[in-house]
Amino acid sequence: MHTLWPQSDELALLTDLYELTMAQAYWAERMHEPAVFSLFFRKLPAHRNVMLACGQEHVARLVTELHFPRAQLDRLDTLGLFKGDFLAWLEGFRFSGDIHVLPEGTPVFPHEPLLEVRAPVIEAQLLETLVMNYINLETLLASKAMRVVLAADGRPVVDFGMRRMHGMDAALRGVRAYQVAGLTATSNVLGALRYGMQASGTMAHSFIQAHHDEEEAFRLYARLYPGTTLLLDTYDTLAAADKVIRLARDEGLDIGAVRLDSGDLGALARQVRSRFDTAGLQRIRIVVSGGLDEHAVQALLAADAPIDGFGVGTEMGSVADAPTLDLAYKLTEYAGEPRLKNSPGKQLVPGAKQVWRFRDGDGRITHDEITRRHEQRDAEPLLVPVVEQGAIVRPEQPVASAHDLAWNTLQAMPAAVRGLRDAEPAYRVDTSAALLKLRDQALAEFD
Amino acid sequence: MHTLWPQSDELALLTDLYELTMAQAYWAERMHEPAVFSLFFRKLPAHRNVMLACGQEHVARLVTELHFPRAQLDRLDTLGLFKGDFLAWLEGFRFSGDIHVLPEGTPVFPHEPLLEVRAPVIEAQLLETLVMNYINLETLLASKAMRVVLAADGRPVVDFGMRRMHGMDAALRGVRAYQVAGLTATSNVLGALRYGMQASGTMAHSFIQAHHDEEEAFRLYARLYPGTTLLLDTYDTLAAADKVIRLARDEGLDIGAVRLDSGDLGALARQVRSRFDTAGLQRIRIVVSGGLDEHAVQALLAADAPIDGFGVGTEMGSVADAPTLDLAYKLTEYAGEPRLKNSPGKQLVPGAKQVWRFRDGDGRITHDEITRRHEQRDAEPLLVPVVEQGAIVRPEQPVASAHDLAWNTLQAMPAAVRGLRDAEPAYRVDTSAALLKLRDQALAEFD
Repeated sequence: MHTLWPQSDELALLTDLYELTMAQAYWAERMHEPAVFSLFFRKLPAHRNVMLACGQEHVARLVTELHFPRAQLDRLDTLGLFKGDFLAWLEGFRFSGDIHVLPEGTPVFPHEPLLEVRAPVIEAQLLETLVMNYINLETLLASKAMRVVLAADGRPVVDFGMRRMHGMDAALRGVRAYQVAGLTATSNVLGALRYGMQASGTMAHSFIQAHHDEEEAFRLYARLYPGTTLLLDTYDTLAAADKVIRLARDEGLDIGAVRLDSGDLGALARQVRSRFDTAGLQRIRIVVSGGLDEHAVQALLAADAPIDGFGVGTEMGSVADAPTLDLAYKLTEYAGEPRLKNSPGKQLVPGAKQVWRFRDGDGRITHDEITRRHEQRDAEPLLVPVVEQGAIVRPEQPVASAHDLAWNTLQAMPAAVRGLRDAEPAYRVDTSAALLKLRDQALAEFD
Repeated sequence: MHTLWPQSDELALLTDLYELTMAQAYWAERMHEPAVFSLFFRKLPAHRNVMLACGQEHVARLVTELHFPRAQLDRLDTLGLFKGDFLAWLEGFRFSGDIHVLPEGTPVFPHEPLLEVRAPVIEAQLLETLVMNYINLETLLASKAMRVVLAADGRPVVDFGMRRMHGMDAALRGVRAYQVAGLTATSNVLGALRYGMQASGTMAHSFIQAHHDEEEAFRLYARLYPGTTLLLDTYDTLAAADKVIRLARDEGLDIGAVRLDSGDLGALARQVRSRFDTAGLQRIRIVVSGGLDEHAVQALLAADAPIDGFGVGTEMGSVADAPTLDLAYKLTEYAGEPRLKNSPGKQLVPGAKQVWRFRDGDGRITHDEITRRHEQRDAEPLLVPVVEQGAIVRPEQPVASAHDLAWNTLQAMPAAVRGLRDAEPAYRVDTSAALLKLRDQALAEFD
């Protein structure tokens, strides 16, 4: 078997080289004081008013399993960069620190930590690449899918993205992120089985093409899969709809839905719906696919197209309109002192933090405040411990409850947050006076 | 250990559900005639004049290992869609057909097959999702990286993308695709070890921040890693450059390079270069990073910025400007007859194909022609067999030779092909008269 994916014992090598060279430098200097690293994004990607935090509970659990098997240390040794004593130290490495996270599904805004690590600086540094890769991808996917689900306005959205997502890891982890966002089903077989999502699929054009007769292909498929979805646009969509009518009405076959995958989807859906309704086939649903994103979905429904569901793949799966998140994992405290960075456009607010979410008397969410970690507010603290002293302290949140959290929170927020075009400012995030004072002190010390 | 990535024996489940339901339908109908499926893209992504084909030899080898272990069939069985006899058939499945591919690294244009499968229709259908996922990602990454390498005009480009690529599978396979494109090194430790690329890394801002004194942090790192690269922009880039001068000139430390990661990279590079040169430190190189893409690299060099290398991550790794490829895997022949599809905007040219690349008397490449597979031309045929009757028949091409193929071919093509903005038409691709005639015959038969 070609070794394609990382093997379990290769987990610790899924990192940038400098994490390991810095770790050796800290080790050589005996710098074992606790550090706080904070994971946040500086600005929202294009068109977004909010992101759904995702991946952080997932990766926090993974961190507790991170270790360097001897065989992997031998591979590292071939790089000629590491001393035997340091490799021996790595062999004994287990994460011993604390990780606080936003629960998955939490709507999150710029500068709010999605995750904070407090651990000896070597340990916290070693997590960087793994933590960023996980949370970057899952947050991007969950957030994009949330937009499609919002646009679909209660109609089911099915993940068709596997073939054009960036690798199999993305496709699999996507299924989990999509559940958080509220998708209904996925075409991804392994994803469905692994994460307990409904597996869904229709038929491809090739199936029609391989048969001499489209109607015969429909008949065979509907007999084999009662309630199935038939694909209408291989040759002529309306002619295909008439074949469906013959099969469903005259032959009594159980056809659950039809799929339109090209052309003017709204106009075709109206024509097909009209033919089906005239034939008394109100029960056959119409689903559409083909290059859809949240804006296309919204436009179809705004035009009252009689569409019952959406298959969404490429645009959602590659997060085509905004495939990157300006995510950073930054040292904000070392040995009990605030640390900052002063690069142009990349200034830091130092110190360990908490994020508070405020509601008014009616339970509507009004705003957030980022504070120093020890401050108290009469509001909901969002960052919760998931790992303490290297051990998991919070039961894994079921994905359904992450979805409930996301949806209930979004619904309680100002409507602008749920908009598909960016509204500035859609949501208010304050920074506490104590945090600003800490930053000013740190800046003054630096000057 | 959390099971995060697909396991080797889960390979066959990395597929869309409809591949399996269609397979069962073909099986139920005893449709075992040979089919030809062709993988191609209909149009170039934005700004591109060419793509580098990548992933096809990789995935063709994987296909020969594809099978359905009993444990996975038991999981499939839980979906309630598959008959026991069909699952038993799947248990005996091994790919028995032929696969022709463009060698990896081949510059490729719209409608040219990157891969063709000839196999019993069930088998060919079952490969769709796997083949598409692999070739889509690797072709996108290799093509994007090629653009960055072209822009860097001989200066080394290092992959810094792991943290923001879409998952670990993308980051790993990216290293391979980047080698085809001509990158010099990667920060990805596992990728470097697995694919034999140079591992590279510098230091993060956190390392500077964790020390009270930037100069002391530089000193410690340079002592530990002679020839290392020091990061200058944590606080004040020019002040940091002066510290580097003291360490290199006055203390004699071996500092190989400095990295600038924010601010006006061109202006800072000039100022830092000037200070280093004045101090007699011509030997210290300047590398830059921070949100770079091919256009930023080109602009820096066009302005004569004294930059010796580029670290490129997010934009390249997520293919941010064009993260999707309009890739399709389509049935073009079944049971010896041409097959077509007539969806609006998605018409097919039927039949098995060959792609020929023509050169003039000086060895310059002039154009391509897509023909029926059995046609002959006095030119180079690009599609080569890699799997025949289920067995690999072509030794795995070393990645270095894929890179040579890419680069030598690009250099022999019209200059417009290598341009970073789309030039219409940059390159001529003809379709043979016999192929057009076959399409017209198939269309006539359909009408």
